[in-house]
Amino acid sequence: MKQAFEKKELKKKSEDLSAWYTDVILKATIADYSPVKGCMVIRPYGYALWESIQEALNRMMRSAGIENAYFPLFIPMSLLEKEKQHVEGFSPELAVVTVGGGEKLKDPLVVRPTSETIMYDMYAKWVHSWRDLPVLINQWNNVVRWEKRTYLFLRTTEFLWQEGHTAHETEKEAVEMVMKALDWYRQIYEDYFAVPVVMGRKSETEKFAGAKTTFTVEALMPDGKALQGGTSHNLGQNFSESFGISFQTREGTSSFVWQTSFGFSTRSLGGLFLTHGDDNGLVLPPKIASTQVVVVPILRGDEGREALLDYCGEIRDALVGQGVRTRLDDRDSQSIGRKFNEWEVKGVPVRLEVGKKEMDDRTVTMARRDTGEKVVVDRREMIPKIEKLLEDIQKSLYATALNFLESNTRDVDTFSDFEEVMKTTRGFIRAFWCEEASCEAAIKEKTKAATRCLPLSAKEEEGTCVHCGKPAIHRWLFGQSY
Amino acid sequence: MKQAFEKKELKKKSEDLSAWYTDVILKATIADYSPVKGCMVIRPYGYALWESIQEALNRMMRSAGIENAYFPLFIPMSLLEKEKQHVEGFSPELAVVTVGGGEKLKDPLVVRPTSETIMYDMYAKWVHSWRDLPVLINQWNNVVRWEKRTYLFLRTTEFLWQEGHTAHETEKEAVEMVMKALDWYRQIYEDYFAVPVVMGRKSETEKFAGAKTTFTVEALMPDGKALQGGTSHNLGQNFSESFGISFQTREGTSSFVWQTSFGFSTRSLGGLFLTHGDDNGLVLPPKIASTQVVVVPILRGDEGREALLDYCGEIRDALVGQGVRTRLDDRDSQSIGRKFNEWEVKGVPVRLEVGKKEMDDRTVTMARRDTGEKVVVDRREMIPKIEKLLEDIQKSLYATALNFLESNTRDVDTFSDFEEVMKTTRGFIRAFWCEEASCEAAIKEKTKAATRCLPLSAKEEEGTCVHCGKPAIHRWLFGQSY
Repeated sequence: MKQAFEKKELKKKSEDLSAWYTDVILKATIADYSPVKGCMVIRPYGYALWESIQEALNRMMRSAGIENAYFPLFIPMSLLEKEKQHVEGFSPELAVVTVGGGEKLKDPLVVRPTSETIMYDMYAKWVHSWRDLPVLINQWNNVVRWEKRTYLFLRTTEFLWQEGHTAHETEKEAVEMVMKALDWYRQIYEDYFAVPVVMGRKSETEKFAGAKTTFTVEALMPDGKALQGGTSHNLGQNFSESFGISFQTREGTSSFVWQTSFGFSTRSLGGLFLTHGDDNGLVLPPKIASTQVVVVPILRGDEGREALLDYCGEIRDALVGQGVRTRLDDRDSQSIGRKFNEWEVKGVPVRLEVGKKEMDDRTVTMARRDTGEKVVVDRREMIPKIEKLLEDIQKSLYATALNFLESNTRDVDTFSDFEEVMKTTRGFIRAFWCEEASCEAAIKEKTKAATRCLPLSAKEEEGTCVHCGKPAIHRWLFGQSY
Repeated sequence: MKQAFEKKELKKKSEDLSAWYTDVILKATIADYSPVKGCMVIRPYGYALWESIQEALNRMMRSAGIENAYFPLFIPMSLLEKEKQHVEGFSPELAVVTVGGGEKLKDPLVVRPTSETIMYDMYAKWVHSWRDLPVLINQWNNVVRWEKRTYLFLRTTEFLWQEGHTAHETEKEAVEMVMKALDWYRQIYEDYFAVPVVMGRKSETEKFAGAKTTFTVEALMPDGKALQGGTSHNLGQNFSESFGISFQTREGTSSFVWQTSFGFSTRSLGGLFLTHGDDNGLVLPPKIASTQVVVVPILRGDEGREALLDYCGEIRDALVGQGVRTRLDDRDSQSIGRKFNEWEVKGVPVRLEVGKKEMDDRTVTMARRDTGEKVVVDRREMIPKIEKLLEDIQKSLYATALNFLESNTRDVDTFSDFEEVMKTTRGFIRAFWCEEASCEAAIKEKTKAATRCLPLSAKEEEGTCVHCGKPAIHRWLFGQSY
């Protein structure tokens, strides 16, 4: 579409991250604003990324025996109220259907903000014996959490996600599931998005409404703000007690099931776009890019047109045959310059330029999106060279992001240093905290930085709270939230 | 889950189709009632069928250049009202969000009953020139159409579907798209579901609200009622005029785009379940079954247990290696009898029984779900024999259903015969109709039978309307609706 090609008008990432972010998402035709406040349209080029994530996560979940299912969009208000903390956490964000089929509803229906309550009402019906366990169910769906100020992908009223909900005989099994799901999320970020994350446990204040413990993967954005990347919850027996999901154990006694839930949403894509990319547009890591290589024929007039397109087609077919996601841009309606701009803005990892010279020499010119580097390679060596190049780009993007994360994670021991960091560079702070909610709130109020998590790697140490000076045993990770 | 195995309690298809239908869906763990009136839960065993359909339709759509995207769940009431006939058609079925984030909304939001209006508002923004055409977008999502009396799959307030929405430079292209989508739907029914359909055009009364022409695939259920299987609409320029989707043509003039939309929903699965199956449960056609072959070890006590399970595992792996969707049921918690019952109720096409005798002889016993026939085959001949068997079952189910359709499609020339058929056997009637809406309404009132479609195969003939006696040129297909 037209707006994609106007690179010259693209806002600069180096000057204004936030303006660039919105601009590049619109111009790369990833998404668009919709006529519904707070809801966006995910366009095909953006949705393909979500489909890649679905494929990867489905593979991981299947390996653990998790199956997909579908539960209703609507939740009766009375059902949502069954777990007290849960409804308190979600009630300010609800969208409520009060009219259906022309009539006012007696029990209003909430558009699901998450599906614990509707799913667990069914689990209570399905589970009777240890033979019925574990229950391993996931759904891919849309959820609605009302937002006043919205931001493409990162904060939208409706978003897409997967929500896994499992029920087990023992807490041990449930905890294993929680950690397995968390590691899947780490893999999506690190291996697919080339975005390093910190894995850890949320504080009591920041945990999921109704959970016993919440685990998270946290990423650091280029402006030093933190992004919660995906969460995995140990629900303990909180919901199974409220919903009556009990079972006969192997020993013949009765017990409530141990539950988990975990979710990964389209919000994650915001983190992907923010992390990579430059003043020329997006930079998509090869493992997640729906088009990894674009072949652009360099046609000057009509002479030799057919032979050149044949050569380009042969190159495309050879790459596709090797599983490289390749697209031949043989559109007549766009100039070469516009095509280059478009694929740059869209962040396609590798561009192959193929003109008369390349055809005559049986070569291709490879241009690398992240560095801009161009190399001419022999047609016979093209496939291994491109495969190697895609790997190199993936690694290089990750290394750059990891370097950024590490050099922007600081051990801070005084509150004035804490304030100073949050006023200037931001980034992650590792600081001792007494684990009192009031202290956490005061830090947030003064610095806008919240606890992100207690990293899994954190060791027990002797220290004093960075804010109140009381004894503390762990350095927690702090950061300003997106 | 427990209830799946109680075959002895299963209602009989031969005695009460409707009671059997509900019962078998619940007992086969395909779906379940939810605490939300009119909405059901699609359980993993049922959802896997939907995933098979998604895979098949995605492949077909991709071959035509159609890409997936996602548009908002909510539609502002004011937007829905832009196409007059469209809003009139849908307004009695709407679910309306009037409260969001704790506040009363000024412009209430409709939960999408279909997405024409929200999508075309965006198309108007994206399309400027013939270079932007065709627009070929599909979405997989959930829609809500309020229902008073609901029926698992066949009539639920929320259902899942795909909705394709394309925009073209010429009407010719749009018409080609409409017919291509219709043929995809025919393929899903006939090639995957083994359910024959009649393709045809809907009458003016029965067409989609806002369409120029609607095409449909119609199936016939065992009780002689007709099921609308999927529809594909030529929208002409109705919506592009209302939404201002205009473009500069190749000649430099301005024109409105020519549009299509087409949808295939989870309702279709109801037709699949009704058509096949018997007093022992579902019968799933191999091409759509998520488990095509189940291997049941016939263990008597613990002796030789390990060797037998090894042999069963080898069989499973060999089949999976050939792309046969195979499951080894090595659960200790269920008896052999219960396992047989469970897989019968669930309609798995082929059961392999493997006991000590089979292991010693290097054979397997193949039991065919549709006929109950059992054959012992040599292990070395197993794979081709099973592949052949799966093909045979698929063909045989289709042949039986086709025979039923043909023997229950009747040419009727007098209205008393028409009434008699609809009072007794029902089925499809081919009858001349004058094409007046009033006559169509009178026939429906008197016989409950509506026009299903004008079959694509219908020839122009000379006749008189079966109801009013006025001249008529086509035999339309009539049937009672589900």
